[in-house]
This record gives sequence, C-alpha cells and structure tokens, in this order.
Amino acid sequence: MHQISIDISKATGFVDPEVYSKIKAEVVASHEQLTKGSGRGNDFLGWLKLPSLVTEDLTRKIKADAAKMKASSRWVVVIGIGGSYLGARAVVDALSHPFHSMMDQKEFPGLVYAGENLSEDYHAGLLEVLDKSDYSVIVISKSGTTTEPAVAFRLLKAHLEKKYGETDAASRIYVVTDAAHGALKKMADEKKYSSYVIPDDVGGRYSVLTPVGLLPIAAAGFDIDALIKGAKKMEKVCQSGSADENPAMVYAAIRNALYLSGKTTEIMVNFQPDLFYFTEWWKQLFGESEGKENKGIYPSGVGFTTDLHSMGQYIQEGLRMLFETTLSVNSPRTELRVPFVDGDPDGLNFLAGKRLSEINKMAEMGTLLAHVDGGVPNIRIGVPQINEEIIGQLIYFFEFACALSGYTLGVNPFDQPGVEAYKKNMFALLGKPGFEKEGESLRKRLE
Amino acid sequence: MHQISIDISKATGFVDPEVYSKIKAEVVASHEQLTKGSGRGNDFLGWLKLPSLVTEDLTRKIKADAAKMKASSRWVVVIGIGGSYLGARAVVDALSHPFHSMMDQKEFPGLVYAGENLSEDYHAGLLEVLDKSDYSVIVISKSGTTTEPAVAFRLLKAHLEKKYGETDAASRIYVVTDAAHGALKKMADEKKYSSYVIPDDVGGRYSVLTPVGLLPIAAAGFDIDALIKGAKKMEKVCQSGSADENPAMVYAAIRNALYLSGKTTEIMVNFQPDLFYFTEWWKQLFGESEGKENKGIYPSGVGFTTDLHSMGQYIQEGLRMLFETTLSVNSPRTELRVPFVDGDPDGLNFLAGKRLSEINKMAEMGTLLAHVDGGVPNIRIGVPQINEEIIGQLIYFFEFACALSGYTLGVNPFDQPGVEAYKKNMFALLGKPGFEKEGESLRKRLE
Repeated sequence: MHQISIDISKATGFVDPEVYSKIKAEVVASHEQLTKGSGRGNDFLGWLKLPSLVTEDLTRKIKADAAKMKASSRWVVVIGIGGSYLGARAVVDALSHPFHSMMDQKEFPGLVYAGENLSEDYHAGLLEVLDKSDYSVIVISKSGTTTEPAVAFRLLKAHLEKKYGETDAASRIYVVTDAAHGALKKMADEKKYSSYVIPDDVGGRYSVLTPVGLLPIAAAGFDIDALIKGAKKMEKVCQSGSADENPAMVYAAIRNALYLSGKTTEIMVNFQPDLFYFTEWWKQLFGESEGKENKGIYPSGVGFTTDLHSMGQYIQEGLRMLFETTLSVNSPRTELRVPFVDGDPDGLNFLAGKRLSEINKMAEMGTLLAHVDGGVPNIRIGVPQINEEIIGQLIYFFEFACALSGYTLGVNPFDQPGVEAYKKNMFALLGKPGFEKEGESLRKRLE
Repeated sequence: MHQISIDISKATGFVDPEVYSKIKAEVVASHEQLTKGSGRGNDFLGWLKLPSLVTEDLTRKIKADAAKMKASSRWVVVIGIGGSYLGARAVVDALSHPFHSMMDQKEFPGLVYAGENLSEDYHAGLLEVLDKSDYSVIVISKSGTTTEPAVAFRLLKAHLEKKYGETDAASRIYVVTDAAHGALKKMADEKKYSSYVIPDDVGGRYSVLTPVGLLPIAAAGFDIDALIKGAKKMEKVCQSGSADENPAMVYAAIRNALYLSGKTTEIMVNFQPDLFYFTEWWKQLFGESEGKENKGIYPSGVGFTTDLHSMGQYIQEGLRMLFETTLSVNSPRTELRVPFVDGDPDGLNFLAGKRLSEINKMAEMGTLLAHVDGGVPNIRIGVPQINEEIIGQLIYFFEFACALSGYTLGVNPFDQPGVEAYKKNMFALLGKPGFEKEGESLRKRLE
C-alpha cells in the first residue's frame, strides 16, 4: 500500500448509468487531448512532464540555498499569493509538527507567509516578530508586479536592509520569477539575489513542483526528492489505463457525472487538521480551472470531526446538491491511546486503550455511511500515509484529474480570465495613472 | 460610527420585488414569533436576553479565574467542539496579535484548542508542547460525554496530574457544563474544580455570551464587559423597527429572498485573516440552524484578497447560485504604509505613502463591484472596527438574524437532528455496548 487509490462505490449509485457511460467516453477523449497536447490552453501543459524533467542541477541548488537559510534564519518569510504559495503551504503544513510555531527549538526554520493578503495589522504584526528574529525571504511572483506580493516585498526588503545592511540583506533574499522578463528578474540580476525560474508553460496553480513549491518546501526541511519521486510515479500511472482503472480518469468521470445529476458542490473532506491547506490548494486548482462560462462544480472544504459539529447538520439534511470527496489517511505518525479512568465517569471506558486514530477512522467510516444515507455521494481517496512521496502522488493525481475534468466539462482548465475584474477596479479606485475615467465612474456607483 | 450597519443596495436588484415584499411580511411575523416565544424550538430562547441578564457575580468570578490562569499559565487549553469552542475562538482570534503564538513574551496566556478533532498527531503534538510549559485547562461540554472533548479531557487531566500532582492539577481545571446533570458536573463537584453553568435553554451555537465563550475570552485577556455591552446594545436594536430598518430583519429578509431567486450558497467574505474563525462561527450558526428538511442556504467562507487568487475565478464566472455577505471593517489597529522605491521597479510607486488598509479597502470596493457585475449579489455589513464592543454587536446581530431567517424559511432554527447520525454509526463501529447489531450491518456495507 504505497500508492493512493480511489473508491467510488458509494457514488455511482447516484448517477444515471447512461449519462455515466457517456461521460466516461468523453473522459477518454479528454485524456487523448491532454496527452497529445491538442486541447484548449495547450501552451500551459509544462506541468505534465515536470516530475520526470526536474534536473539534479536544480534540486542541488535548492538544497544548497535551503541549507543557507537553515544556518542563518529562525524564520523564512514566503511572499506569494494564490498558486505562488498555496502548494508550498499545503505540503509544509501537512508534514510539519502541528504546533511548530509554539516550539522553542527547531532544526529547520519555520515558514511564515506574507503578501497573500493586504491586511495592515497582519503585516505590521509580522514585522514586529521579525524585529526580534533572524530571517530570510523567498519572494515568488511571475511578473513581480502583482499588488499583494509586490507591496509585501517592498516592506520586507526595506526591513531586511535596515536590519542587516544592503549586502547582507541581498544574501537573505531568494527570488522565484519569470525567466527573462518582469520586475523581479531585473532586481534579482542587479542585486545578485539567488534566483529561480518559473517555466513559461506552467500556470500558477500547477506550479508546486517547480521552484515555486520546491524551494520553500526544502527550506522547511522536507525531502523534495521523495516528493518528486511520488509525483513521477503518478505521472506514469496517469498516462494509461481505461476510464475504470486510471484513478485520474475515474475521478474526472464520476465528478462530471455527479455534476450532471445536480450535485454542483463538492466538499473536500479531511480528518486531519494539518490537511487544511491541502484542501485550500485543491480549491484553487479546481475552482479556478472549472469555474467559468457560468458553470463548474463549486469547491468547498471541511475538516472533520471538527466540522461535523458545525457543517455536519447541513451536509446530513440540507439542500441535496452536495457530494463529498474524502482524503482517507491510514497511519498517523505518532501513537496516543485513550486512558482508562476508574469509575468510568464519562462512559468512555469502552474506548480505553484504543488509539485516537482508530476512533477517528471509525468516525470517518460512520460519517461516510451516514452522509450517503442522507443523499450525499462519497468519493474516497485512499492515502496510505502523509509523507513527501504520497503527497507528491496526490499533487500530480489532482492536477491531472483537474485537467481531464475541465476538458470534459468543456472549458479551458488553464486560464483564469475572471481574476482580472477586481484588479482593474482596484487600480482605478486607487488612482493608478491611466485609470482615471474608470475610477470616476466606479466611485459614482459606490455613493 | 460606533454601530454596525447593513447595506443591501447591491442585492435588491437581484430579487423579484413581489417576492421580496412577501418575504418582508413573513420576517415581521417571524419577529413576533421570536420575541413572543411562540415559534418552534421555543424552549431554546435563553440567548435572546443573555446580554441584559448577565450578572456581575458571574463576570466577577470569571475575571478572578482569568487572573489565576494569567498568574500560573503560559497556555490555556480550551477543550470543546462546535458551539463549545467556535464562539470563543472567533472572538479571541479576531482580537489577538496575528502572530501571537510566535511571540516570546506575552501579558496573557495564549489559547490553544483540544478535543475539537480526533487527530492523534494533533493531540500528541499538543502534549509535547505542554510538557515544557505551564498551563491550565478549560473544559466545555454540556453532557461531558461528547466523544471528542471527553477523550481530550481524559488525556489532559492525566497529563496535568502527572505534571503537577492531583491537588495542583485540580486548581488548574475549569469546567463549563450542565447545571445539574452530566459527567463533568459530577467530576467538578468531587474534585472541587471551579465550575460554570451552561443554561438549559441556550443551544451550543448560541452560547458564546455564556461562560462557554466568556471564560476563555477573559482568560486570553479581553474585555468581556465591553463584549456584553455591545451585545446589549444590539439586543435593544433588534427588538423593534420595521423590516426595512431593523438590521437583523433586513438581513433575514434579503437572504431569504435571494434564496428563493436561486442564490442557494452564501459566501461570508472578510478582508482580514483574523476574522477566519468568526466566519467559521457564522457557518455553524447558520448552517446548523437552517440546513434541514432538504433546504437552507449553504454557508461558505472566503478570506480576501487571499482567496481572490483561488476562489475569485469561480465567484466571478462560475455557476450563478452565489451571493456574498462582506464584513466591511473600517479601521485597522496599526499603521503601515507602502515604502517609496527609487526607479519604481514594480510600477507601484503610485501607491507609495498609502496605508495598506487603504489599498485593502479599494480592493474590497473593486471586488464588490466586479462580483455584482458578474451576477453575484452583495450584502455589506459595516463594521466600524474590530474591538470587543463591536464584536459583541456582531454576535447578537447574527444570532437574532439567524433565528428570524430560520423561522422565515420554515424550519426550527434551534435543533440539529442530523448531527446524531454519524455518532450512532461511529459508536456502533467502535463496539460500544448495546450497538453490536448495528455495527455488524455497517461493517458489511463497508466491505
């Protein structure tokens, strides 16, 4: 059991067999489009072969920079937004000690994030912490001009230079950006920052296996070779097999069939709080790939058993447009058992001696059946354990399945035309030169 | 501007005027039901008058216990799940330093949470941290037998007794539970724990203004008098006024009208990461109150501008069953401005000297208009600033609006029958005495 698996036996009963057959045939066609590069957005297929094309030169440089950060820094600030931080954060949070920021001594620097929001309190608070600790900065932005990370980089660069002087500051800045163009590339060349390339043919949400993800993951002390190894394995698995065997095709087909049956919201379920950001990464991947042309499955996430006591009621008995996809993890990394208590005051001595993971697993199975009985189809992704290799598999599996799923839905899974709308308005309202007229008309609408 | 406000001018255009008038009349009827106590679930209306009925005896005892925890503890572990922790966490996270767990020195203990999940790694990691720090425990559970908090309390009580001895451990345990019955009440009496009552007529998701919320909030160093004062103000505001003035009636009416127009998913939007748990609290309040009888608005949450780079594409252009409710906060607590950079490498010098909060506010306004243009109605909750008093207002406002909204939808907003289904299955699968037969049949279904 060193490979992820998929079980759709609790979902197929909710779809029309004819529709499902038709969809499976379409997924086969999507697979051909994708692997032949003949579909929409085919100038953004660089991620397809990333696992097998990562060079040792690249990973060597990443590991050397990670070692430098380890030697010099208590914290590494990762500046990026959307696809420029969610992948790294998903992997690092899944693998880290759940209370790492509360621990005194650490072998590796802790990662903190900036430029993924515009909160003044958040960034002021971060600078306050950094006043008292040694740190490095990884700044990740293709253009170097995206507002949130660019503002954060202005703040952090000034802070670093004040704290360490310009030369030492430069040795603490690592840049991941466009190969040839863009603001960050120019600065990196001038100031001699250690810099990395985001390939032109890899979009943000598919970029975790480039330096965008690999550099922060290595800086946090995790094994990027194993991550790539896992992804490579899944790259191979996803190449072939029928629509009933290839796990990415199975996932793409069943979720499109469910969508056509009126199940328009997919809830990604985990039973491990450290998978929260993996779900966030998945939400971007699928939401941004499919949510266009007034269609697409709405991606949502819950962490159980926590949210069984908040969203559980709705999922069990609310509007029936939901289906669930469960990340079903098998082995915890630690061992903790329920203590026996004399007199059994809470009536739980029948659990004494059991591991928490066993109770958690029975909660998972009990929930699965309860929700299916309530009319919520379930897709179960079997996850043997949480380590770098398995996460590498999961990343590639979901990326590949997402591309197939988007083609099957009939959209371009590699663009995001809707993300520009708010930016244009924001620039106009902020008085960016050239946007004066738009600004005026927007202000009128807000009066 | 010391009071929250509501602006529905960007939502009314999406609903049929006749439907909206009808709904407003129904909300007026719901208001009468609620205030007269004649509606469904009227044995759970204790929360209605909580703000004006909190006694000084109670707050004095809470403050004395908070002072004891401050003197003796680096951390306070709050054990609870669902309504027994989300309210406290919502308030404490909103008011805390955004990086409080990374700061060395603190005036007040930091809050950490246990028993809100069953993860073995999570609880083992927590015990590891607690091995090295002084701490106290607040355990919150009406019955004392809910699996997650009961398991966590077994672990923490054993850990405390080993660390401090039985007597000293008892002085570090604070219990919030049922007045007369239940496992925790019995233990508290026997061991002389400091204990507090959860009123019988207040359900979990409406309990933040009882000791369930007040004790942890006070332990974290926040002003519970101001919180209650704010809630009391809103208690008065919500009593009267027409369906076009009373903010709770306005919110209840427009969201029900949107629901009838096919807007079946409500996204709670914030632009401040520290409001994440406030959104989680809101999701439980509304999801658990309305999601039943195969109806109800699906509650979802996003944090912008972060999620504009993940969920933004879907919200702008995906399936049109969405509406947004924005928590529009006006004043940050700190001041931070964008630095000027020579040569303007990233083209952002037009922002130099501006506060981050100003850019964030323009992002909010730009997003609002972009999403409305994309077919997503917007409800804007004006929040003058984030402090105890305003949060108290928000809590009561949403609780009152939720009750009105549930009555208008035609459900009992105070029960949660669907939460039991997974528990029964879990007990059966765990071999709880008396559940043998069910266990057998469930295991067969899982084969």
